[in-house]
Amino acid sequence: MKDLVLAVVGGTGALGGGLALRLARAGFKVSIGSRDAGRAADAAKEVADATGSDRISGTDNFSAAKDADIVFVTVPFASQSATLGDIASVVKGKIVVDTTVPLVPPKVARVQLPAEGSAAAIAAKALGDDVRLVTGFHNVSSHKLSGEGETGCDVLIFGDDVEAREQIVEITNQLGVRALHGGPLDNSVAAEAMTSLLIAINKRYKVKDGAGIMITGIPAG
Amino acid sequence: MKDLVLAVVGGTGALGGGLALRLARAGFKVSIGSRDAGRAADAAKEVADATGSDRISGTDNFSAAKDADIVFVTVPFASQSATLGDIASVVKGKIVVDTTVPLVPPKVARVQLPAEGSAAAIAAKALGDDVRLVTGFHNVSSHKLSGEGETGCDVLIFGDDVEAREQIVEITNQLGVRALHGGPLDNSVAAEAMTSLLIAINKRYKVKDGAGIMITGIPAG
Repeated sequence: MKDLVLAVVGGTGALGGGLALRLARAGFKVSIGSRDAGRAADAAKEVADATGSDRISGTDNFSAAKDADIVFVTVPFASQSATLGDIASVVKGKIVVDTTVPLVPPKVARVQLPAEGSAAAIAAKALGDDVRLVTGFHNVSSHKLSGEGETGCDVLIFGDDVEAREQIVEITNQLGVRALHGGPLDNSVAAEAMTSLLIAINKRYKVKDGAGIMITGIPAG
Repeated sequence: MKDLVLAVVGGTGALGGGLALRLARAGFKVSIGSRDAGRAADAAKEVADATGSDRISGTDNFSAAKDADIVFVTVPFASQSATLGDIASVVKGKIVVDTTVPLVPPKVARVQLPAEGSAAAIAAKALGDDVRLVTGFHNVSSHKLSGEGETGCDVLIFGDDVEAREQIVEITNQLGVRALHGGPLDNSVAAEAMTSLLIAINKRYKVKDGAGIMITGIPAG
């Protein structure tokens, strides 16, 4: 699994940067994508310096997606459809992990689901049937992901393709994060909506590092 | 606050029964409501025997709601609209706590949100503007609520009327459950959807007592 090339499209953003750091630290081959290939190369150098990994590079989003085995997409909601549309032709048959949370500024602490129902539904439409769509990482703050050690919260992974979902759960579990199967894509909306709720909790309870969720009651092992 | 009369409409069900038990054990005056007043009286006697409380009674849903200061509604999704419509005329100005989760059998492990958006939106429509609507208790299993001691999971409380929401958070915190402000009614959908996700996790990970969620990162005190 460590020989797979994992692209992080939008990898110069806060969440994508944290994810690239954790993937690199865990020894994966990582390709950071950005609209600006130069910025992606700079970000890759930063991650290489921080982790000591020589298995990380940077390029434009399209090239990163085209040359990868698995593609993580970490872009703001406003860019989701366009970004997925841009890479759709080069990710057929691949696992694409969409992390989009449908936040609508300025009221990001209020759940405002899209007409399509969820960001997962928008992704499914933008990518088409031949892509192995998985969603996840909605409820982990970029701050926590960028740090070292355990994040202290769970990551929920969704997908109708159970084998694809299993592979992403396995990869995520190597990143110092507990990943759990959340069920089919229809369930993604629960985690997507939860993010606005966590932002509301951050404000109300003055949480500095970002509130998260943990699922309780799961037997050990 | 212990002199308020708290009705539990649908209190002969599993969730309502657990809630009535915890309220009685905490010393609140509780009125269990049911479509069948006789069954409500039987349930009240059981709770009285189990808790030693002499501040619990049972009657029909309408009478329970009419004579209460605060009304908890714990009925299945299929009965929500009709039940709320039945009591709407006698709960004007009162706090109504709707606990409905929009589960659609048989696929209860799959999120299937209603056309209105959420059970909270359905409740708001059924009750009208003069009711101080709060929602909550979506993610705590009836099994846990019926037991003694800490539930090991959080209860999220929603409402646009912040004072009403605060009062329900305070009451809930006296029940051996950590209650948290989840924000406005629009955020209720996050907790409502989360229940199907928890059912999916119960199946996948063979959780016997019901998975729950805890919010991490909140400063102590």
